[in-house]
Amino acid sequence: MKDPAERPRRSTSSVRVRTVGGGLVSERPDRLATEEPMEIRVSGPGQEATPVAVTMRTPGADFELAAGFLFTEGLISGREEIAQVSYCEDLPDDEQLFNVVTVRLNRPWNADAAKRNFYTTSSCGICGKASLDEVEVHCSPVAPGPEVASDVIRSLPGKLREGQPVFDQTGGLHAAGLFDATGSLTALREDVGRHNAVDKLVGEALLANGLPLTDRVLQVSGRVSFEIVQKAAMGGLPVIAAISAPSSLAVEAGDRLGITIVGFVRDDRFNVYSHAYRIAF
Amino acid sequence: MKDPAERPRRSTSSVRVRTVGGGLVSERPDRLATEEPMEIRVSGPGQEATPVAVTMRTPGADFELAAGFLFTEGLISGREEIAQVSYCEDLPDDEQLFNVVTVRLNRPWNADAAKRNFYTTSSCGICGKASLDEVEVHCSPVAPGPEVASDVIRSLPGKLREGQPVFDQTGGLHAAGLFDATGSLTALREDVGRHNAVDKLVGEALLANGLPLTDRVLQVSGRVSFEIVQKAAMGGLPVIAAISAPSSLAVEAGDRLGITIVGFVRDDRFNVYSHAYRIAF
Repeated sequence: MKDPAERPRRSTSSVRVRTVGGGLVSERPDRLATEEPMEIRVSGPGQEATPVAVTMRTPGADFELAAGFLFTEGLISGREEIAQVSYCEDLPDDEQLFNVVTVRLNRPWNADAAKRNFYTTSSCGICGKASLDEVEVHCSPVAPGPEVASDVIRSLPGKLREGQPVFDQTGGLHAAGLFDATGSLTALREDVGRHNAVDKLVGEALLANGLPLTDRVLQVSGRVSFEIVQKAAMGGLPVIAAISAPSSLAVEAGDRLGITIVGFVRDDRFNVYSHAYRIAF
Repeated sequence: MKDPAERPRRSTSSVRVRTVGGGLVSERPDRLATEEPMEIRVSGPGQEATPVAVTMRTPGADFELAAGFLFTEGLISGREEIAQVSYCEDLPDDEQLFNVVTVRLNRPWNADAAKRNFYTTSSCGICGKASLDEVEVHCSPVAPGPEVASDVIRSLPGKLREGQPVFDQTGGLHAAGLFDATGSLTALREDVGRHNAVDKLVGEALLANGLPLTDRVLQVSGRVSFEIVQKAAMGGLPVIAAISAPSSLAVEAGDRLGITIVGFVRDDRFNVYSHAYRIAF
């Protein structure tokens, strides 16, 4: 289930850019974070694969993204349901070969149920509460997990930033990293979509039979929205730390789902918004 | 079609936060950007309203968001199709009153067509090209528009930041602002979703019969994704400037749709990625 080794690296794209500054206008080659749509298709034994979703993503870890998306959205319940993940073989257009990922399940796939499920998920029960209930149905309550020293929390943004190869080239990309309780980086993904970076991490753990991630801290490069908390909860992550602010609904979700939400980790300070008992001061 | 005057301001929410820093742990009240789902329903004459989409948004300018969303997604073609925009009156739960917005059209509404349209839009034709075609079908080519001096471009991030009341309270929120060619701010919206901030601006112009926005510059607080370019194109905006990086597909879309994409407007410098002829150096 690995990406083919011969697949070209496409996480950055070349452009020519006109730079204005210091009284000078110059033209030079530059690199941008690649954004391309990826269609996720699902099938059961003997079934034709049906499209489930399209996400705008940065190419790379596509199989992890597909698996992670299906899991964090509650469409599959575990690694054991997946028979195969592959790029689409029957596309006439070579260019699109790596933009369609098919997940074959070893149980029948109900495409209509997926549609209903999506309606539920995306509608968020109008107020977010039904969606929270939905998450609570799909995932076990998040375990108490590790205690994390405040010095470890403070060290995470720098370590995340050091581990971002695509950001180094392009200067603009979301990142999500998994750390153990001592602050060692165990996995990192970059993506133009913040939710995709988290899906890639959860999907990688899912495919490696490493869920739930009860002993890990999730550090994200930007803000924390409800969606990020929902996906972290599905992955069993007990602590989410962010360089910027959480939203109101992210904190409400963290409260209800037993997740520690840490925000504004910068300049040697941070804020804890929920379940502060996991942070050792 | 204005929000009821008595409606409480809900763009920020109160929380208690534990702050760690300088060897001290303290607890204090804090404010977060509110994130709540908003359901958009549409109906024609004599028809029951059907849900079209739910977006996680920061409350405020909800009618503009609903109208802007329907327009930038190609579901309505102009102001003249809208008969009324209102909050849902028949919800049993008072708390949700302001989270459901109904747009009544003065022509029949085909809910199935909307579904097909969404599939097209969100699937992006696998490679983004079909989606670009879709945008080109729905909007006139972007007019040449104004020439903008490089000093004006350099001044926009500071002016955008000064105009952000919710960011001041919460420290974390996207913003999108419209400026004229001399750099005067004409409209500004903040939202937890970058696309919502743009939809609110376009929707405001739509409801005021002010489209297309051919003499305006759109400045956004973060990065530029494909989605932002798509929405700007539907609004007829000729120039998009961003504090951070564009994605590869954003630049490709700008190239094809005739839009000037400016990125990394910071520290007195900026980059121009497409249609540089509109920037006077």
